[in-house]
Amino acid sequence: MTNIKAIRSAASRLKGYVRETPILTSPFLDEIAGKNIYVKAESLQHTGSFKFRGGWSAISEMSEKKRKNGVLAISSGNHAQGVANAARAFNTKSVIIMPEDAPSLKIANTRKLGAEVILYDRLNQNREELGAQIAKDRELTLIKPYDEPLVIAGQGTCGLELAKQCKGLHISKADVIVCCGGGGLTAGIALALEQEAPEFTVRTAEPEQFNDVAKSLEAGKICRNHSMSGSICDAILTPEPGEVTFPIMKKLCGKGFTVSDEECMRAIYLAFIRLKLVLEPGGAAALAAALFHSNKIDCENVIIVATGGNIDKETFTKALTNYN
Amino acid sequence: MTNIKAIRSAASRLKGYVRETPILTSPFLDEIAGKNIYVKAESLQHTGSFKFRGGWSAISEMSEKKRKNGVLAISSGNHAQGVANAARAFNTKSVIIMPEDAPSLKIANTRKLGAEVILYDRLNQNREELGAQIAKDRELTLIKPYDEPLVIAGQGTCGLELAKQCKGLHISKADVIVCCGGGGLTAGIALALEQEAPEFTVRTAEPEQFNDVAKSLEAGKICRNHSMSGSICDAILTPEPGEVTFPIMKKLCGKGFTVSDEECMRAIYLAFIRLKLVLEPGGAAALAAALFHSNKIDCENVIIVATGGNIDKETFTKALTNYN
Repeated sequence: MTNIKAIRSAASRLKGYVRETPILTSPFLDEIAGKNIYVKAESLQHTGSFKFRGGWSAISEMSEKKRKNGVLAISSGNHAQGVANAARAFNTKSVIIMPEDAPSLKIANTRKLGAEVILYDRLNQNREELGAQIAKDRELTLIKPYDEPLVIAGQGTCGLELAKQCKGLHISKADVIVCCGGGGLTAGIALALEQEAPEFTVRTAEPEQFNDVAKSLEAGKICRNHSMSGSICDAILTPEPGEVTFPIMKKLCGKGFTVSDEECMRAIYLAFIRLKLVLEPGGAAALAAALFHSNKIDCENVIIVATGGNIDKETFTKALTNYN
Repeated sequence: MTNIKAIRSAASRLKGYVRETPILTSPFLDEIAGKNIYVKAESLQHTGSFKFRGGWSAISEMSEKKRKNGVLAISSGNHAQGVANAARAFNTKSVIIMPEDAPSLKIANTRKLGAEVILYDRLNQNREELGAQIAKDRELTLIKPYDEPLVIAGQGTCGLELAKQCKGLHISKADVIVCCGGGGLTAGIALALEQEAPEFTVRTAEPEQFNDVAKSLEAGKICRNHSMSGSICDAILTPEPGEVTFPIMKKLCGKGFTVSDEECMRAIYLAFIRLKLVLEPGGAAALAAALFHSNKIDCENVIIVATGGNIDKETFTKALTNYN
């Protein structure tokens, strides 16, 4: 079950292993948005994204026998590294299926974290079928990136942390904007805040043409994106909201934001110069929403979940060179 | 007096205003150094460096009357912003004397933080005389950047925080490497750790040709640098250790490190790609020492104080482009 109890249980398993990521502010960002902006920097989590939480949550809850056989994940990036790193800590074999055209740094990092990487051909192979076959043949447990209760519970621990930190900052009412792919983090945070900070409203940020969650929330049912490539926000490009995550988001979330790639690049530059943070495009979408769409925010306090920092140096350099 | 009591008192004044900066790690950095590397990211402090601690400590301890008159600081960068930001929070006027060739972003930021900036000509004007004159004429209180007990006490709060965090990480013995200019932060941390983590050894990191503290520690007396420009580590270029800070460092610190500008640039790249941190050259000196001079470190655990992240985008881009 995906509920607050599962999130609290994940938090107790993660205790001492997950990093409590800081909440950062800058008067310069407040000025741009005309709001109080608080940035929760999950880019500083182990492996550079919140995904470590879900990976650890899932692996730590497996039976000894299953864990001994090993785990499998299908991911081109952050989920791959999060699962590989958590598996390594449990001395568990991890097999990660990655597209052969994934950034070479991400493939190299995943291998260095101890995973066996299996590359597939994006055009001619179905990764789900491939994954299911390998999992079956080698008795590996598949860890899905978002539509999996234990993963959602792990991501939800970010919400518990956020609620605790906001109490310390005396923030009692806020919009919480989360960079959103399949909705694992969004749903987890929404469930945590429903209990711990009921005056907070969770809202999603997605790139143009990949705003399936915003569209689905508006329509009240799952809507699919038309395209599957064409945004720089690689970490949050998913075809549609998850079957487990969507009902939670539908019940608990406010209206979603849609941001352009260019707005994400500007947000990357501003996070660099004002917060001294390295964000990847998909990890900067929520900040872009707060800075450039603040006319759609009623609340004075805006909490941003900056979800990841796994960006290559060429893209980062481009953001610094072309924006200010 | 500069002692643990003053540091604890500064910590109580800073409570709720200073950020507890996180300690970050990466298995990739551990591999390079052959050590366990822990990075305390003071680059994520308010205004992008630890200097906010000292500025707040000094201003919060002033009498109401003096505080009402205002404060003055002489600085081309981080101390300027730290003092300006702290003064603003106390509704105190701040006057900052900056060289007219200081980076325009730093001048603009200092102004935006509410300070009156007075520019001087580095070649033809003596900034100390100018500062003394203005302070006298306008009844402002001068806040020195490091050789001032209240400032040292403020910087020392970073050491208290570090000791507490290391207990949580079960680190009982470590070398602590601090990027060092005049020695305010180094002395403050050394005093804090003498009480709170007596098995830790504080060591300095300085750029080539500006290793006055390393030389002074070796000679047992204050030695001066020959040049006053010529390193990219602008935040930590000081002519000699302070009269207040040196005796503390002499009593408590281990052998200092000297690093090249190129090593700092490589450390900036590695902090970007492995920790998702933005560091400035002077704020990366300690990381450079740990990564590239680990043969001079006996201890298995190395704690780095990454002191600042106020770097312009041109220099950062250069580090990303030229190093890997």
